[in-house]
Amino acid sequence: MPLDPSTIRIVLVHPQTPENIGMAARAMKNCGLSRLVLVRPAEFRSAAAYRPAMEAFPLLDGAEVHPDLLPAIGNSRLVIGTTRRGGQDRRPLITPSDLVREVLPRVLGEEVAILFGGEKDGLSRAAVDRCDVLVTIPAHPDFPSFNLAQAVLLVSYEIFRGTAARGVGANKPALASSRSREDLYRHFEAVLHRIGFLHENNPGRILSTVRRLFGRAILEDREVRILRGVLSQLEWALNRPRDEKGR
Amino acid sequence: MPLDPSTIRIVLVHPQTPENIGMAARAMKNCGLSRLVLVRPAEFRSAAAYRPAMEAFPLLDGAEVHPDLLPAIGNSRLVIGTTRRGGQDRRPLITPSDLVREVLPRVLGEEVAILFGGEKDGLSRAAVDRCDVLVTIPAHPDFPSFNLAQAVLLVSYEIFRGTAARGVGANKPALASSRSREDLYRHFEAVLHRIGFLHENNPGRILSTVRRLFGRAILEDREVRILRGVLSQLEWALNRPRDEKGR
Repeated sequence: MPLDPSTIRIVLVHPQTPENIGMAARAMKNCGLSRLVLVRPAEFRSAAAYRPAMEAFPLLDGAEVHPDLLPAIGNSRLVIGTTRRGGQDRRPLITPSDLVREVLPRVLGEEVAILFGGEKDGLSRAAVDRCDVLVTIPAHPDFPSFNLAQAVLLVSYEIFRGTAARGVGANKPALASSRSREDLYRHFEAVLHRIGFLHENNPGRILSTVRRLFGRAILEDREVRILRGVLSQLEWALNRPRDEKGR
Repeated sequence: MPLDPSTIRIVLVHPQTPENIGMAARAMKNCGLSRLVLVRPAEFRSAAAYRPAMEAFPLLDGAEVHPDLLPAIGNSRLVIGTTRRGGQDRRPLITPSDLVREVLPRVLGEEVAILFGGEKDGLSRAAVDRCDVLVTIPAHPDFPSFNLAQAVLLVSYEIFRGTAARGVGANKPALASSRSREDLYRHFEAVLHRIGFLHENNPGRILSTVRRLFGRAILEDREVRILRGVLSQLEWALNRPRDEKGR
């Protein structure tokens, strides 16, 4: 099964210039992508966006617009964030080419959202925390910041180049739904609280590390069930009376 | 000998909008290129070009400007033209990635010019005739025409990826050693034993699931330390006396 471009939504989070929205639409269409989603965008129903979009105007016509990130992500199985290298965060970053070669083949047929932050500040901390996978575009250190539409182009182009010749995923295991993963993270968090781990450390950082780690692994249904089983058994062991212990 | 970006000049032939000149400069600098050459350009000593160029303004300051193609090409050993697929020209077209992998390595250390035509008509017939190699950027047939600055970006990016393949690796977080991963798995196994989880289930299957899951995630050093911390705290919580519980 090849990678299906119609499963991929490009989500621009608070894009601030109509020109970039139009240029991003053009870049998407150049690369065979069509689903443009905008979160709190600049006004783009104008020539400033439509002129650079050129023949990609149907993407602007059909763009979903949302006030918040969550509805923009919808029921995406995988949320991918694009970010500049070298924030305070030391979470692992992969390249667009890694994304296409290694990550996307694991979620064939599933909905995928790729997030791009606004021109000034990129993705917010909260948006980054919602991502399963973080992508950074390799760039020269003298000026590593790509224009928004250029970043959309580079990621779209890698996807386009990767879509044609891919035949993976014949016996793909059932992947965990977004909801069951969120339930897993909450369960994990509850156990960490229970043992006082989050109390002593930086809770947000620990939890986002866990989320990202499992996000990268692209959990299967079966794996989530096993992990939930471990967590339940842990809670049981933590709660049972003292005299039953140490047998 | 690696490919030397300073031997590569990007020649825009009759670019018609200052925005594209500025965006092309930015794209070049993002990708470590610095030699911008302009043939009969639109007026670009203005905010319309400098604003989108951002930190790449030195490329605009230092751009060579020529009235004709020949002096712009200078003493380039190889002249590469970028063109849309399917003109009348029958010469073979290669992709930017072919260019970087197969052609440029053969002219290492020599001057190279890469030509991009204007927004409306691309390279003239005469310019194409002057080229030694023709490159086309693969695109979706529904809308195969890239914006000028986007085309410059895609070619520059391929060159950057070809010259600095280890770019991302340099900043990659430290990955966990094989030994520390094995220690983690053993620690995990000990805790599972401790809570009776492995006793009740199929131990081999559970452990290999865990191993595979973390294996896929390609754990970092830091993540292993956090997970080990969680496991140690779990053991502590499981062992502490009953009366300290439930606070």
